[in-house]
Amino acid sequence: MTNTNREWLLAERPDGEPDVDCFELRETNVPDPAPDELLVRTRYLSVDPYMRGRMRDVESYAEPWDVGDTLKGGIVGEVVESASDAYDAGDLVTGEGRWADYATLDADDVAPVDPAVADPEAYLGVLGMPGRTAYFGLLEVGEPKPGDTVVVSGAAGAVGSVVGQIATRNGCRVIGFAGSDEKTAWLTDELGFDAAINYKRTDDYRAALDEAAPGGVDVYFDNVGGPITDAVFTTLNLDARVAVCGQIAHYNDEEIPTGPRKLPQIIPVRARVEGLLVGDFATRFGEASERLTEWVASGDLEHRETVVEGLENAPDAFLGLFSGDNIGKQVVRVPSSMNE
Amino acid sequence: MTNTNREWLLAERPDGEPDVDCFELRETNVPDPAPDELLVRTRYLSVDPYMRGRMRDVESYAEPWDVGDTLKGGIVGEVVESASDAYDAGDLVTGEGRWADYATLDADDVAPVDPAVADPEAYLGVLGMPGRTAYFGLLEVGEPKPGDTVVVSGAAGAVGSVVGQIATRNGCRVIGFAGSDEKTAWLTDELGFDAAINYKRTDDYRAALDEAAPGGVDVYFDNVGGPITDAVFTTLNLDARVAVCGQIAHYNDEEIPTGPRKLPQIIPVRARVEGLLVGDFATRFGEASERLTEWVASGDLEHRETVVEGLENAPDAFLGLFSGDNIGKQVVRVPSSMNE
Repeated sequence: MTNTNREWLLAERPDGEPDVDCFELRETNVPDPAPDELLVRTRYLSVDPYMRGRMRDVESYAEPWDVGDTLKGGIVGEVVESASDAYDAGDLVTGEGRWADYATLDADDVAPVDPAVADPEAYLGVLGMPGRTAYFGLLEVGEPKPGDTVVVSGAAGAVGSVVGQIATRNGCRVIGFAGSDEKTAWLTDELGFDAAINYKRTDDYRAALDEAAPGGVDVYFDNVGGPITDAVFTTLNLDARVAVCGQIAHYNDEEIPTGPRKLPQIIPVRARVEGLLVGDFATRFGEASERLTEWVASGDLEHRETVVEGLENAPDAFLGLFSGDNIGKQVVRVPSSMNE
Repeated sequence: MTNTNREWLLAERPDGEPDVDCFELRETNVPDPAPDELLVRTRYLSVDPYMRGRMRDVESYAEPWDVGDTLKGGIVGEVVESASDAYDAGDLVTGEGRWADYATLDADDVAPVDPAVADPEAYLGVLGMPGRTAYFGLLEVGEPKPGDTVVVSGAAGAVGSVVGQIATRNGCRVIGFAGSDEKTAWLTDELGFDAAINYKRTDDYRAALDEAAPGGVDVYFDNVGGPITDAVFTTLNLDARVAVCGQIAHYNDEEIPTGPRKLPQIIPVRARVEGLLVGDFATRFGEASERLTEWVASGDLEHRETVVEGLENAPDAFLGLFSGDNIGKQVVRVPSSMNE
């Protein structure tokens, strides 16, 4: 095994839209696992919209990255050296790793990956944090009831695509917003969405909603914010629930953005609008993983991953999230000279 | 008894800020009570911010008033003729009446007024709809816990003044926004608020909050909207609750107003923001009335009414709500030539 590792560092904090200059690839040494740690070779690295928040020097739910530090993120990888009884070399695991070829992870903090259930990269999407976010966000915050109309923004993304499918399982009428005809076709033809709106083909989202959801909206699962969200708020039904999972349209704003005020709109319908973070459901992750694994294994829950090749392209994969390059979960495949 | 009645009609719908031209006082005949109805002479008439919504030609939770129709509203009055076994002439009752000297009300739709508990006009405020709104809105939507910091906008109004006092009863630190030094003094000196901010003395609401609530805000009870609300949203603590009861700053807007977007702000703290309407708690009104009456009778719950004299001045009393003329509940006293 080579002793050379490559790690992506935060080179500088972005001002507005980030670019490749924010990242720097540095060669380091492969670390040694301490007792109870595993040395893991990255096979797939997750890039996620929430990471934009970690690039800011602001305390939040996810610790800010420091300039000069190696970037962290979810990985699927292979144990190459184990200092734990729990795993052996060759095991596939998933956990919070680094944007690097190799990282050491505490054995207590990883979970096994079973390639018989799904391709390993699915453990960063439908069987990982995005899938759990969809599961708890929809069921616990959105509280869908049979017959409800559910609207999902960012519907072809890692979270949204799972939200919509769980909603259809629950007897809801499901409408998704996505940014290409390929995405909307995937939603309606493969995932069972009742309707999908390509937001790049119209400016009049309200008219599109009136056609797709003439009875109004009972649950809105928001990954995006901006004008789509503004339109959905004008169609909320009595006692509507809004799960605010993401606001990717605003992540690169340096000032608090302005838009139509929503509080005057939620009084007449007594809507409940709630911010959502999957970590708040950590004690119930087992339940979600069990159900999601079952649905994926049985073929009831479709999933898709968009793969960018090579650790050297990780920043591009991350930046592509903001232009909607991905369908389903965006991951980076990290090949090894040894076995690929 | 005279046979002449006076009734305020909606003369025209306002465009933006309403004025007296929107109202017309017309002489009519005193109506006769049908079986099970009461003829009630108005003693006090309630004017409320939500009535601005009824002036619009838009279906909402409160039916819109039609141009040419007599305006409706809460009253306290004296039964002058009873066609019901439940009440006798001379009884004081409260219910949904009209902006008029006399109105007929269904005996099933009124409640008795006990002047031994409080002055009759209090049944339009602390012991009426505003008191119940405060009770359910704070306890069921705001869910205050001992030690929480609770912020109330419109704190010296009919609802806000009760919200703050119930919050102090629940062991919370309570901060109110109000629009005059007389109001803020009433809040801190009489009602037990821990701090009060005169929003007309500063533009920097965030700085005022940082001083009054250095640990952030756990519960925000919003009657107002606008820049006060914008500032409070930047100070919300983890799992904060926002009860959106009113948005009086925006009631005269003809277009959806714009302002800082709040959804990006609620994700990191997972705040819950919920529209509130007291009618949703109708099955539990008895519970609220019992508690509020008990607290008022024991002197634990302070209240105040601002009285405008004369039915002819009812539109002015209503319009004054938008400039904050009232401290506590705004009512109109309707004297009678017979006994006053």
